[in-house]
Amino acid sequence: MIRELPFTLAGLRQAYAEGLSVEAVIEEAFRRLDATGDPGIFIHQARETALAEARSLGNPDSRPLWGIPYVAKDNIDVAGMPTTAACPDFEYFADSDAFVVGRLRQAGAICLGKTNLDQFATGLVGVRTPYPVPLNAVDPEIVPGGSSSGSAVAVSHGVACFSLGTDTAGSGRVPAALNGIVGLKPSLGVLSGSGLVPACRTLDTISIFAMTVADAWAVFETAAGYDQADAYSRQLPVQQMSASQGTVRIAVPDDTSLKTFGDMAQADHFRATIASLRTQGAVVQEIDFQPFYDVASLLYEGAWVAERTAAVGNRLIDAPQTLHPTTRAIIEPGLSLTAVDAFRGLYKLQDLRRICDELLAETDFLCVPTIPTFVSVEEITADPIGPNSGLGTYTNFVNLLDLCGIAVPTGLRQDGRPGSLTVLARCGQDAAAAALAATVEAGPLGATTWARQKPALTTSEIAAGEIAVAVCG
Amino acid sequence: MIRELPFTLAGLRQAYAEGLSVEAVIEEAFRRLDATGDPGIFIHQARETALAEARSLGNPDSRPLWGIPYVAKDNIDVAGMPTTAACPDFEYFADSDAFVVGRLRQAGAICLGKTNLDQFATGLVGVRTPYPVPLNAVDPEIVPGGSSSGSAVAVSHGVACFSLGTDTAGSGRVPAALNGIVGLKPSLGVLSGSGLVPACRTLDTISIFAMTVADAWAVFETAAGYDQADAYSRQLPVQQMSASQGTVRIAVPDDTSLKTFGDMAQADHFRATIASLRTQGAVVQEIDFQPFYDVASLLYEGAWVAERTAAVGNRLIDAPQTLHPTTRAIIEPGLSLTAVDAFRGLYKLQDLRRICDELLAETDFLCVPTIPTFVSVEEITADPIGPNSGLGTYTNFVNLLDLCGIAVPTGLRQDGRPGSLTVLARCGQDAAAAALAATVEAGPLGATTWARQKPALTTSEIAAGEIAVAVCG
Repeated sequence: MIRELPFTLAGLRQAYAEGLSVEAVIEEAFRRLDATGDPGIFIHQARETALAEARSLGNPDSRPLWGIPYVAKDNIDVAGMPTTAACPDFEYFADSDAFVVGRLRQAGAICLGKTNLDQFATGLVGVRTPYPVPLNAVDPEIVPGGSSSGSAVAVSHGVACFSLGTDTAGSGRVPAALNGIVGLKPSLGVLSGSGLVPACRTLDTISIFAMTVADAWAVFETAAGYDQADAYSRQLPVQQMSASQGTVRIAVPDDTSLKTFGDMAQADHFRATIASLRTQGAVVQEIDFQPFYDVASLLYEGAWVAERTAAVGNRLIDAPQTLHPTTRAIIEPGLSLTAVDAFRGLYKLQDLRRICDELLAETDFLCVPTIPTFVSVEEITADPIGPNSGLGTYTNFVNLLDLCGIAVPTGLRQDGRPGSLTVLARCGQDAAAAALAATVEAGPLGATTWARQKPALTTSEIAAGEIAVAVCG
Repeated sequence: MIRELPFTLAGLRQAYAEGLSVEAVIEEAFRRLDATGDPGIFIHQARETALAEARSLGNPDSRPLWGIPYVAKDNIDVAGMPTTAACPDFEYFADSDAFVVGRLRQAGAICLGKTNLDQFATGLVGVRTPYPVPLNAVDPEIVPGGSSSGSAVAVSHGVACFSLGTDTAGSGRVPAALNGIVGLKPSLGVLSGSGLVPACRTLDTISIFAMTVADAWAVFETAAGYDQADAYSRQLPVQQMSASQGTVRIAVPDDTSLKTFGDMAQADHFRATIASLRTQGAVVQEIDFQPFYDVASLLYEGAWVAERTAAVGNRLIDAPQTLHPTTRAIIEPGLSLTAVDAFRGLYKLQDLRRICDELLAETDFLCVPTIPTFVSVEEITADPIGPNSGLGTYTNFVNLLDLCGIAVPTGLRQDGRPGSLTVLARCGQDAAAAALAATVEAGPLGATTWARQKPALTTSEIAAGEIAVAVCG
């Protein structure tokens, strides 16, 4: 029965090998979307285009994503579809694919449409949109998470096998945690930003949501590549996510600096996840996390807000009413920041980078809860900014420090809510981070009832220290 | 006769080996200074301190700079001396040495005092100072060059064996060209900035003046080192300036984009120098230089002015009359630049970096005239800003592109003025650039009559392609 078919790479590939048509999969994807009854997930549904593409694919071939349905956050261009960044007045029709979308198309993937987001990718909650707010796939009382709300919800429901999000401050990780799926945030510059509406151009990256680490990694390998047209693209080798021998060294926030805003279940679940890594042989070092919080505070309390202001251009001056009120409230202060403020921010960041580098000198990975706690729709309605800021506790600092990371489900907490760990590593160490994440992957596959296959690796098979350090800079 | 003793490393070491006292050398240094009759070279003379240090040195030892007299630009701290940055109201007494000064002290060098500069290191002419303007050592009708004016003039006169300058926009290269000496501008982050008054903190480096490439390199090797306290310090290996085999590939501005402001002697001399490199076996590629000029224009016409504004703190608001009028005119516009301007400047630079990287993809070195032409004191008096900007034609872009460079005398032009070539290379390739510069080193040793020893290397002995690429970033 196609209705029970897991839209995982393995599930779809097997079904195709057994003769299932791509058209049937696309029809099923939209049936599932309709079944959610949620009008907020997509901004643009590309049902007919996707079906036409399905029919034109022909017989199965060796392309890595042949017939795989996905969705793209609506700040990423897909040729022939509108791009809105969740601002209707900003809408334009994309003549050509974003670089990454083009690579997915070449690999045989089929785009089902464009998904909802916090407007201009500013937010971690998913409610800052003039379109209907998507419902969290696992618990509708909780915010869907953002800014890549629709992309995360679509995967969690099993509508799409994977999705493209973006991640500047955590938009590719927070919604993964809130919807019980994987969120892969690559090293900056590995996934081209050509065809992406910028949020903070120096800190933006496209990100990938999927049900499993293996699926996210397979998509990442296909999407990654140097892009001559993107000045922030970097020539980083994509490592193999392979097993080898060695001791894994992990840093975690110490008890004093771990923040869960009183959510003991979150702290307990995180400590249990780390304990299981220790049991597998990882060496765990507890560190004072304050310098990372200090970096995080630069993003919205410091000069980088002006990047968002720059990104919306004259809209704040000429047509402020076209912005979501919360988005406007966040971005407007960027107008009054000075260039002196900006450079002082850069100096402060450089000082903090040095301190953070020292804290991580003897470790391969930094492990954190993806989110400190959960935020309800009720809470964010009462206070549109405070709870949003809290959600960025373990994500805001990451791109400022040029780290890569992956958020992975770690099974359910005592209260049944999804647990999520984020594994962070130095720029270029994406494969090592993903391999470690795969060792703790657990729990339901998003909001589905699909069975999880056993993880591919354990920590004893990962030798972080033996992975060549890539040249970043 | 000590009066004829060349204050080169070889000259002084031989004299010490033959029994000359350090005290006598220090006395001679100040005699030479007095003989110049120029009150503008030093801001602070440390005669008694230097003599006391000379006496305390004891017998010659193996330290690399034992008994070597030098001077430091007065924006670099020397313990027990005032630092003014050529702004009397800014003056403070330094309790401790700048990191680099400390290394020189440990190596046995003796500081004669602090030298004049364009105030707050803003300028390339040397006349933007409330103190007497130093006279150019080879031709008093020409500006001394800046901002490291006194440091260059002192070396050119043979008062000091070497000197410390700084170089953000060309302050360590332009005065070298104007005074017929060597100016070594290291890769950013190799010489610590601890104890340096910032100009543009993201682009500043300490630089070294000496009579010869060999002497500048010896000082550089001693001064270089990672500094935990400077967030911009980088762990770059200092290569050996050694000979090996291979083809040297050099890019130069093509005829259309070479700018000498009508100074044909400068263009001819530059082309002759490049021809001699070609004769020695170098492969020369002519490139359109416009993208480099576009980068250069960012420094003073773009957001980076705000770094200088940040560096003077509240002085522009609280005590603007304490600034040199020209310095104030340059720095004041930084107050009205916005953070959006700053980030747009960073984006523009990133775009231009990509273009420049492509132009240099097939080359090891970029060779340019150090200055496009000469500027007279009369000209800069008539127009304090225009001719200064012209002097930065081949220097302003260098730190923005994270290149290293060395300005080297290349003999006299047809009209008797000093010729100077700047060899630029990628970050970390300081040794290779110095080795190439040594092959074209020629002409008088500054304003002295000392004999030049034959150069150590020829291009056929330098294998740029074989030098390991250092990790920059």
